[in-house]
Amino acid sequence: MIKVHASTPRLEAAMARFGLKNSTAIQVGDLIMFSGMTGLDLETGQPIEGGTAAQARHTLGVFDDILHDLGLSLDHVVKVNAHLVNLEDFGAWNDVFLDVFDPPYPCRTTVGAPLIIGLIEIEITAATEPRR
Amino acid sequence: MIKVHASTPRLEAAMARFGLKNSTAIQVGDLIMFSGMTGLDLETGQPIEGGTAAQARHTLGVFDDILHDLGLSLDHVVKVNAHLVNLEDFGAWNDVFLDVFDPPYPCRTTVGAPLIIGLIEIEITAATEPRR
Amino acid sequence: MIKVHASTPRLEAAMARFGLKNSTAIQVGDLIMFSGMTGLDLETGQPIEGGTAAQARHTLGVFDDILHDLGLSLDHVVKVNAHLVNLEDFGAWNDVFLDVFDPPYPCRTTVGAPLIIGLIEIEITAATEPRR
Repeated sequence: MIKVHASTPRLEAAMARFGLKNSTAIQVGDLIMFSGMTGLDLETGQPIEGGTAAQARHTLGVFDDILHDLGLSLDHVVKVNAHLVNLEDFGAWNDVFLDVFDPPYPCRTTVGAPLIIGLIEIEITAATEPRR
Repeated sequence: MIKVHASTPRLEAAMARFGLKNSTAIQVGDLIMFSGMTGLDLETGQPIEGGTAAQARHTLGVFDDILHDLGLSLDHVVKVNAHLVNLEDFGAWNDVFLDVFDPPYPCRTTVGAPLIIGLIEIEITAATEPRR
Repeated sequence: MIKVHASTPRLEAAMARFGLKNSTAIQVGDLIMFSGMTGLDLETGQPIEGGTAAQARHTLGVFDDILHDLGLSLDHVVKVNAHLVNLEDFGAWNDVFLDVFDPPYPCRTTVGAPLIIGLIEIEITAATEPRR
């Protein structure tokens, strides 16, 4: 069973501003794959102010919106892949991760990477059943 | 159900030239995972000429060949993870992505990364059912 | 079916030292996703001596321990995603990969990336059925 999820209208408008047309999420069986997201203001297309922590919180908030649109929540996230422009921000990112998710936490991998825009790029994988 | 897919003969010969022996694709249930690929000429082992766009197109063409070998097509791709050596080539990569795939497009994440060879490394995930 | 796997006690103690609480592995259906790992000595929290090859071998050994804890082995690994601080260490990493795994090998993607600690970060995906 495969199901392509259309973006929320706000997100779709924000992506169109960048010429982006990739799907937000595609479900294959009991797994849902997502496109990576950065901490952009969906109205202005500019990075959220407040650095890595604020951008991480915003990005997870956008994923939360999409998940709710699918009848799911952050409790359904099983893996989080994060790319940080500044590795010294790992502590700030870790604090947001622990604050936004509840235990048992998702799996996670964090590495450094130059990004097209913003200070952190987050990609999630979710399941149709909650992990908690 | 798990199934390891042997490489196409051309690809296997190219990989042997680099001492690479990883599987090209492994199917687990209704999901097929692939090894990352770069835009190398499979005969010479050298990066394809023409920069990021040409290498991206070539790499997706190699995936297309492998997918056809599995009885699938680019319509079965659900996620694309790209690593760019030069972030300013994102527009060129986006153009190729939009040209090679048809809507609804796969999910996608693009970040910057130094690469062993070539200007873009692409990894795909496919499903046994098409997304369109 | 979703199942969150608690860490082994040694690994959990090592992660607590860094304030890390993400899950080690989460199973969704017939697929098991893991958190990325680096080549740290689980007792001291310091990178393993001996460079990329030694750290790669150690990291795959930690995954082997976790897999055994789940009733699985390295034969169940279907995909390996590696991030190298020094791209010139690819040959050393490839040698370890070929030595630790047996054919048919898992799928693999290797890119360069700055890391928070250590010289190689490895993330694996496994299946409940062996690939060999």
